Amino acid sequence: MENYFQSVVIEQVHPVIDAGRYPIKREEGDTVTVSADIYKDGHDVIVAFLRYRKKGAKSWTDLPMEHLSSDRWQASFTVTEVGRYEYTIMAYPDAFLSWRSDLEKKQAAGMNVVSEILEGQRMLKDAGKQAPAKDREVFDKLVAALQVSADPRVALAIFNAPELTELMDRWGDKSLATHFEPILEVKVDRVRARFAAWYEFFPRSQGKVPGECSTFKECEERLPDVKAMGFDVVYFPPIHPIGMTNRKGPNNTLTAGPNDPGSPYAIGSHEGGHKAVEPKLGTLDDFDALVQKCHEMGMEVALDFAINCSPDHPYVKEHPDWFFKRPDGTIKYAENPPKKYQDIYPLNFHCANREELWQEMKSVIEFWIQHGVRIFRVDNPHTKPVTFWEWMIGEIQNDYPDVQFLAEAFTHPKMMRVLAKAGFTQSYTYFTWRNFKWDLTEYMQELTQGPMREYFRGNLFANTPDILPTILQEGGRPAFEMRFVLAATLSSVYGIYSGFELCENAALPGKEEYLDSEKYECKVRDWNRPGNIKPLISTLNRIRKENPALHEYDNLEFYKSDNENILVYGKCSADKQNIIIVAVNLDPFQGHHSYVYIPVESFGIPLNETFQVHDLLNDERHLWKGEKNYVSLEPGKQAANVFRVRRWLKRENDFDYFSM
Amino acid sequence: MENYFQSVVIEQVHPVIDAGRYPIKREEGDTVTVSADIYKDGHDVIVAFLRYRKKGAKSWTDLPMEHLSSDRWQASFTVTEVGRYEYTIMAYPDAFLSWRSDLEKKQAAGMNVVSEILEGQRMLKDAGKQAPAKDREVFDKLVAALQVSADPRVALAIFNAPELTELMDRWGDKSLATHFEPILEVKVDRVRARFAAWYEFFPRSQGKVPGECSTFKECEERLPDVKAMGFDVVYFPPIHPIGMTNRKGPNNTLTAGPNDPGSPYAIGSHEGGHKAVEPKLGTLDDFDALVQKCHEMGMEVALDFAINCSPDHPYVKEHPDWFFKRPDGTIKYAENPPKKYQDIYPLNFHCANREELWQEMKSVIEFWIQHGVRIFRVDNPHTKPVTFWEWMIGEIQNDYPDVQFLAEAFTHPKMMRVLAKAGFTQSYTYFTWRNFKWDLTEYMQELTQGPMREYFRGNLFANTPDILPTILQEGGRPAFEMRFVLAATLSSVYGIYSGFELCENAALPGKEEYLDSEKYECKVRDWNRPGNIKPLISTLNRIRKENPALHEYDNLEFYKSDNENILVYGKCSADKQNIIIVAVNLDPFQGHHSYVYIPVESFGIPLNETFQVHDLLNDERHLWKGEKNYVSLEPGKQAANVFRVRRWLKRENDFDYFSM
Repeated sequence: MENYFQSVVIEQVHPVIDAGRYPIKREEGDTVTVSADIYKDGHDVIVAFLRYRKKGAKSWTDLPMEHLSSDRWQASFTVTEVGRYEYTIMAYPDAFLSWRSDLEKKQAAGMNVVSEILEGQRMLKDAGKQAPAKDREVFDKLVAALQVSADPRVALAIFNAPELTELMDRWGDKSLATHFEPILEVKVDRVRARFAAWYEFFPRSQGKVPGECSTFKECEERLPDVKAMGFDVVYFPPIHPIGMTNRKGPNNTLTAGPNDPGSPYAIGSHEGGHKAVEPKLGTLDDFDALVQKCHEMGMEVALDFAINCSPDHPYVKEHPDWFFKRPDGTIKYAENPPKKYQDIYPLNFHCANREELWQEMKSVIEFWIQHGVRIFRVDNPHTKPVTFWEWMIGEIQNDYPDVQFLAEAFTHPKMMRVLAKAGFTQSYTYFTWRNFKWDLTEYMQELTQGPMREYFRGNLFANTPDILPTILQEGGRPAFEMRFVLAATLSSVYGIYSGFELCENAALPGKEEYLDSEKYECKVRDWNRPGNIKPLISTLNRIRKENPALHEYDNLEFYKSDNENILVYGKCSADKQNIIIVAVNLDPFQGHHSYVYIPVESFGIPLNETFQVHDLLNDERHLWKGEKNYVSLEPGKQAANVFRVRRWLKRENDFDYFSM
Repeated sequence: MENYFQSVVIEQVHPVIDAGRYPIKREEGDTVTVSADIYKDGHDVIVAFLRYRKKGAKSWTDLPMEHLSSDRWQASFTVTEVGRYEYTIMAYPDAFLSWRSDLEKKQAAGMNVVSEILEGQRMLKDAGKQAPAKDREVFDKLVAALQVSADPRVALAIFNAPELTELMDRWGDKSLATHFEPILEVKVDRVRARFAAWYEFFPRSQGKVPGECSTFKECEERLPDVKAMGFDVVYFPPIHPIGMTNRKGPNNTLTAGPNDPGSPYAIGSHEGGHKAVEPKLGTLDDFDALVQKCHEMGMEVALDFAINCSPDHPYVKEHPDWFFKRPDGTIKYAENPPKKYQDIYPLNFHCANREELWQEMKSVIEFWIQHGVRIFRVDNPHTKPVTFWEWMIGEIQNDYPDVQFLAEAFTHPKMMRVLAKAGFTQSYTYFTWRNFKWDLTEYMQELTQGPMREYFRGNLFANTPDILPTILQEGGRPAFEMRFVLAATLSSVYGIYSGFELCENAALPGKEEYLDSEKYECKVRDWNRPGNIKPLISTLNRIRKENPALHEYDNLEFYKSDNENILVYGKCSADKQNIIIVAVNLDPFQGHHSYVYIPVESFGIPLNETFQVHDLLNDERHLWKGEKNYVSLEPGKQAANVFRVRRWLKRENDFDYFSM
């Protein structure tokens, strides 16, 4: 029965994911706005507090909540540190405020309030008993003052004194308070979890001598080029020793020649496993130096975490019990019947010794953390238990809250969502397959405007070593420009796989895979080959950095245009000082023009005010007015407009003298 | 770490209220269709079971769930008894089925499957170890059979035997099963909780001598009239002794004359409190006889539970600690400053002795249950703690699962909702104030089509002793007809307060209250006064009983019409055999006609088939065809159509000989 003595209802708390099963996500410096339905029986004055703390702290910070309307209350707190925060709500009927409100009404109606004043005195006395000496003195003085004067107006003045309200807030009766359960959590990541431009390259393909694989040292020479393009994160596919048994040859053939380097995803040889580097790339010291160099240039390294073992991986000998076995005791290779993947032995995450296996996987991450890596791109997480990731990421982030994980799960939508809920900092998306106005709009709204905005950060890769989408194969350079602008402006976090800047688009016939894929051979490229789109890339990455509106993820808004091939959208900084409008021609083959409809009033621009749009890509400026304006885009000439909206600072009637 | 070893994700379970905080509601014989997102990493075959049981039973009944699409699974169970049921979901990767599926693919591809067959044998052996002797024998026989033949086709036939699938279902490895939590609940009520027509009358106003109050015995004489109108529930305002102190006179005046009976809501005098009957009405035995009479006629009594104490209530002397007190020790009357309600002392549900008070309130309900009452209409529940109702209703329904509570909470929407979640069987609604097409449609969709359908049953009262809505005051008899049809067909459960059938519409000037309200005086009426709408009432109540579509609550669908004053909607039985279409003229002053648009294909009627609509109110029949048809309604002549859709049973090509 005791459980039933709470008196305030607190429900429909927002934000919350699956009733508190998973934390919401934010980044350093973000605001968490919490709202809830809060109400109770009768007419008592309700007081509600949003409580928050860094997880592990003993005491809560209490922020008074504001009643919006229809029993909806709200308050906001700021998360200043990377790590986990907790929040909840506490609300109670305030006997003192309820009584005071009644007293005021009765006095205004000229009723006798002698009894009410005595009642107030008693409340003060009771509260005083709870208070420490210093506050108790104040209570005692007020009670004494109440006894001196019989004038109810004097009493009301005393009861209304702000310091009394504050004291009663602290020491008044809260025995009927309701504490919302469960306590909810926020995972706070670095701003880079939300705002970053990624560049993927194979360390072995950065050399200059055709037919030869490059080393970490040669990678260092490539970094200035990456930096000049404006990227923040350099992501490497696996750098570990590659198995010899059943090594794959060029274009995924089953027979590798003696000089074929093999797929870096077939991890492990006699030279080591997940905690070693492929000797052809150099030493661990060389890797450390490369990481160091990146950091010095203001960039960061992301490493691939691919839980694949080649038959030569040290685990196979040291921990055969971690693998799936046949009745004859041999270890099973990966299969998707009738397909066989004989160069890969999958690990059994539910084997008898699973605790040992899970701990070892965690220790791989810790190993690379010790070598300066703070971002891990996880290969195919959807083929390992979701709960493994929840456990592992949770454990790692307890010790290293700044570490990020990107989920490469191209699979069912619900699996992609639950991996993000379970802890992945960022996720790959279906972006590469969304090409048209309706499907881009629908999908980006789902990612950034629906419930997913609380936990899923879509990292929009425009291509990957596995995905050369049709639009890039067919659309040539204008398609690369268009897709680049989309990736870099639809999301605050995006990436390209090297070769994109060179508009590489040779595919295996009828497939989305690259011809002569880098996954099976070392490549040498002229990174400044004519026809590259590096100027666009560096310009747009600079624009991204300079415009706070593009740093945010969930501020995306789509606008109407009359042409199915013209996609128009915008982003606006929270203070509305930075407004970006993007118009993209989705057709890489033909020019298109359209009226576009921008809700300028939502930016604070009156419908009758002429304003300037400044195309940050080509530095052209246009004067626009009202909601309906016009754009024209031509493949090969201009793939998109990235307008910054600029208002006139003043008019004469904005000055003081005008109204004097 | 142990907690993380589940492998299947089960989420977005539906139906669920506030993550399982409250039970969903159903009625005897109903189906509960449960769906959920169920999936896991990798490619294992998943098996999922919906588990349900009567609350308190030890074992679950497991129903296999069906995969619909995109990881959504579903199954249904039927609730056959009044009380509480529990349900949850269990899902696991089926190692045997996964292995068998791979085996089939490999064999089809002509691969060597010797090792796989050995693996299958081992699975059978392991499962056999778990099974009791009888099942183990079967396993042993199958394993032996597998060893006899080397032909993989023979093995596959054995592995595919249905009895083996069933045995493996029972004894296979389920160690990786996920059990959804929390366990969810269904409160199952009697069908009468969903389908009933209520009639409210004041027992003291059923007499024939002007100026004299009637008794329970005289009420018995009124019952045949109520029965003839087709009502199921007879609801009485409080029948307890009425206080003398500050008794209210006619029209809520502060001074009662010596013969004024007082408001029955000022409960308690020296003759007893909530467990007594007002002596002027008769004795408890008389009440019992009245209840008995109702039951004999197939009707049921609903009693008012109004937690109001007059200053003369026995509680005041026996339990002064249950009330609010002034500093001088006197008991406070009810106030809403500056208004005073000196005839009522409110109880303090959070007083020091609250456990005693709550138990006493519960015992009041139990007292009347002993006197044959199974339905309680609760006055102003929103002025007592929500948790009190949750506790009290829960306790009562543990012992008497068939007892129903109707919440009379005219207050904030969220409070009305939470009272229903917390346990109220039915609720009053805003229906009296919804008069037009848009607001009736919006509100009825909210009640019957949104999340509220799972827990909130709106009992549509067309009037109450406190509410004589403007439309009835102004619209006269056509308005009463129109509002009656709406109440009786929009919801499966509805009610009227007596006098409605006589079209009584005299109000206090400028108010929604009745002039010379029965709340303060005894009335005598000619129940067959000319101008009454009893024929309509009895006809429509008969139509309701005869048409299963009108027994359901959440099968309401609105259809388009071209006229703002013509509201069109329909209800269809689950088997689509009973289809009712209602067209109502919302304007009591003018006739209206309109095209109406009915999605006949959803009833299984082809667009080119002529069908019959039979107006059950006036027995007229029309031939309609396709979606667009026509209605015409005239105040005073016909307020509404209540069409039953009738199809031609056969055409020649429906007979066998046609295709022979």
